[in-house]
Amino acid sequence: MERIVADLVVEEAAQLLTCAADAPDRIGLVEDGWVALAGERIVAAGTREEVEAAADLSRARRLDARGKVVAPGFVDCHTHLVFGGTRVEEYAARLATDDPKELRRRGVPTGIGVTIRATRSASEEELFLQAAARLEGMLLWGTTTVEGKSGYGLDTETELKQLRVNRLLERAYPVEVVSTFLGAHGWPEDTSKERYLDLLEREMLPAVREQGIAEFCDVWCDEGHYDAADSRRILEAGLAAGLAPKIHTGAYSHVGGAEVAASLRAASADHLNYTPRESLEALARSGVTGVLLPGIDFAVRHPRPADPRPMEEAGLELALATNCCPGCWCTSLIFVLILACRNHRLRPAEALRAATLGGARALRRGDRIGSLEPGKQGDLQIWNLSRYEDLIYHLGSNPVETVVRRGNVSVDRGRLTARTNRND
Amino acid sequence: MERIVADLVVEEAAQLLTCAADAPDRIGLVEDGWVALAGERIVAAGTREEVEAAADLSRARRLDARGKVVAPGFVDCHTHLVFGGTRVEEYAARLATDDPKELRRRGVPTGIGVTIRATRSASEEELFLQAAARLEGMLLWGTTTVEGKSGYGLDTETELKQLRVNRLLERAYPVEVVSTFLGAHGWPEDTSKERYLDLLEREMLPAVREQGIAEFCDVWCDEGHYDAADSRRILEAGLAAGLAPKIHTGAYSHVGGAEVAASLRAASADHLNYTPRESLEALARSGVTGVLLPGIDFAVRHPRPADPRPMEEAGLELALATNCCPGCWCTSLIFVLILACRNHRLRPAEALRAATLGGARALRRGDRIGSLEPGKQGDLQIWNLSRYEDLIYHLGSNPVETVVRRGNVSVDRGRLTARTNRND
Ligand SMILES: [Zn+2]
Ligand SMILES: [Zn+2]
Repeated sequence: MERIVADLVVEEAAQLLTCAADAPDRIGLVEDGWVALAGERIVAAGTREEVEAAADLSRARRLDARGKVVAPGFVDCHTHLVFGGTRVEEYAARLATDDPKELRRRGVPTGIGVTIRATRSASEEELFLQAAARLEGMLLWGTTTVEGKSGYGLDTETELKQLRVNRLLERAYPVEVVSTFLGAHGWPEDTSKERYLDLLEREMLPAVREQGIAEFCDVWCDEGHYDAADSRRILEAGLAAGLAPKIHTGAYSHVGGAEVAASLRAASADHLNYTPRESLEALARSGVTGVLLPGIDFAVRHPRPADPRPMEEAGLELALATNCCPGCWCTSLIFVLILACRNHRLRPAEALRAATLGGARALRRGDRIGSLEPGKQGDLQIWNLSRYEDLIYHLGSNPVETVVRRGNVSVDRGRLTARTNRND
Repeated sequence: MERIVADLVVEEAAQLLTCAADAPDRIGLVEDGWVALAGERIVAAGTREEVEAAADLSRARRLDARGKVVAPGFVDCHTHLVFGGTRVEEYAARLATDDPKELRRRGVPTGIGVTIRATRSASEEELFLQAAARLEGMLLWGTTTVEGKSGYGLDTETELKQLRVNRLLERAYPVEVVSTFLGAHGWPEDTSKERYLDLLEREMLPAVREQGIAEFCDVWCDEGHYDAADSRRILEAGLAAGLAPKIHTGAYSHVGGAEVAASLRAASADHLNYTPRESLEALARSGVTGVLLPGIDFAVRHPRPADPRPMEEAGLELALATNCCPGCWCTSLIFVLILACRNHRLRPAEALRAATLGGARALRRGDRIGSLEPGKQGDLQIWNLSRYEDLIYHLGSNPVETVVRRGNVSVDRGRLTARTNRND
């Protein structure tokens, strides 16, 4: 067999986690692990013998991973990366009280309306700069693919503006930014739900389709938000506009969103705090990925944190994401992994799988990213840790030393080294 | 008045937190804040006018803090920094179960004995290197003073070895390492408590005194550990050897440790999960600082996390610390601040006060460090944040850009720049 000439080789990792789809241990742990890359792609990942059999390493740049752990780049499959302003005042006030009357008495501005006003009034450049600061944080903590939703405009102009900023971010940074249209994050205070849904169907979705500016359509299905019938209507309209469905559901109640997701074969159903067992089974049967968001459960001191146990028992594929947003300003999937394992009792191997291949599947990219397998995109990271469980055992430090994205080193010794077309 | 010639000036901070002892808001917030340093000391900290009136800035190196927040260096007043090995296996296993039988069945080595064996068998050099990796993490997250306890030897030789490593660390890094003798962390399996206390009094404490190698004496006072009478005896013996008392108490039961601490006017009483109101009041009356350890409450999923509210109502001075140890491998006081505010509902200003001046007081250094006031040691940090509450609102990122310790820049743009006598 002709060996492929590799450009880059990661050598002698104490532990290599391939996260290969069929790995019985979920993470494909290889001791003394090697990875060879040619161009953007992985040639081989495994033992030295396996890699040398497939790749000619003689001309490859070498990354020494002795005593370290190598894993796929993280796929953060649920964020609201682009938004204007901050809700730090609300976050700080809610530490003392969640009583709405008390918050009003103190004059604390609360809720999505604050962010909608700030996002509408911000220029594209301002939104870019604010989101870029968060995105840089994500990259430094090992994330190579980020999903970002609109949903802080609730008008056509601002929703499109958010999605355009996703594109600018992707052009400026070594990261894939996957765009989700979440016009159905809510509806404006000054209009009815029905009127807004008309606008969404007749103006927003056609514009999104025409500009080819999003890949998924999402809706917040919960009590006081969109109900199951609304959600089906929105996601079907999204499908008609070429957008694959996703859903926020079960965060604060169960109103049948999981059933909608299952029947439409959504890419993912996210939150799932109140989703009952039979609904989880319906999701699993339809191949929907379940997305856990431990950051928001922590940030709001959720009375019923999502429980991964029945999800696993139902056979649901799991993903973990930061849900980075004004209510949960979290840019580190490692922070989320720590919470997932300690607060939600997810096993470390399950958590790592969920933050890599699980996230990729929630973005329908399981064939391209999320694991280190021949032919897949060369997105990986090197942690200054001697075993992978240290990632969740070491609290509050950043072990990410090196990030490789599409075969190029984008973070080196903890520093961002690659920016593409920053000034385009 | 003659102005003092400053060597270093921090200019135009969006927010300066002096944490001055008498600040009514607890953090001494100054907008457009300046700090001038001469040699190791602070000349002035406050508004531009105040600082320019006290210091001649014409020859000073300038640190630009525009749009950023300046605060005192963190004082991490409770850690078990020096120990051998790891307990990651136990941590990972306990995510799934805390049942001792189940842990035994799985063959998971658990408890302090694991660490004692590893610490005894490690050389001084090995202990140094293992602790240095943790200490570097602490410095990068803004800590300028760290307390470190012995207590993983339970024999004279190893206890002294741990304390010697503290000294080596202090010589190698830009940090003050405060040494606490915690021979009474437990007693060896192969001896009785009484016999061990004899050894502690007749051999260990005299050796510690002779070598001048520790400043505090500490004991773990709790059910199944040392009781109140034991604790009094140990701490009085420590006092006779010139060591100021500290106590671990109330972590898992209330057996009267707080009363011992109050009557001996201990520097601090730490944990306090089960300490009743009247005992908290006794501590406050005696000027004992109460130390909250949210990291360990998180790491062990504590059934009764420490509650700062009755402590504050009792008038107790509070400190926050990482409790870095094999059960809570936490090197970031910022991670602890996030937990303190969200899980324990501490107000951000109280939490910051507790991690600076509170920590200094728990180490009887309130007159020298922990706040930015004229004459105090020049230990400060600059965060890439526009307001201080962002420190606990932004989850999982490191905002520490610059650390100044004793007037010298020791961390610059997030990188450790100073190591002293590393190879001595
Ligand atoms: Zn969301
Ligand atoms: Zn301790």
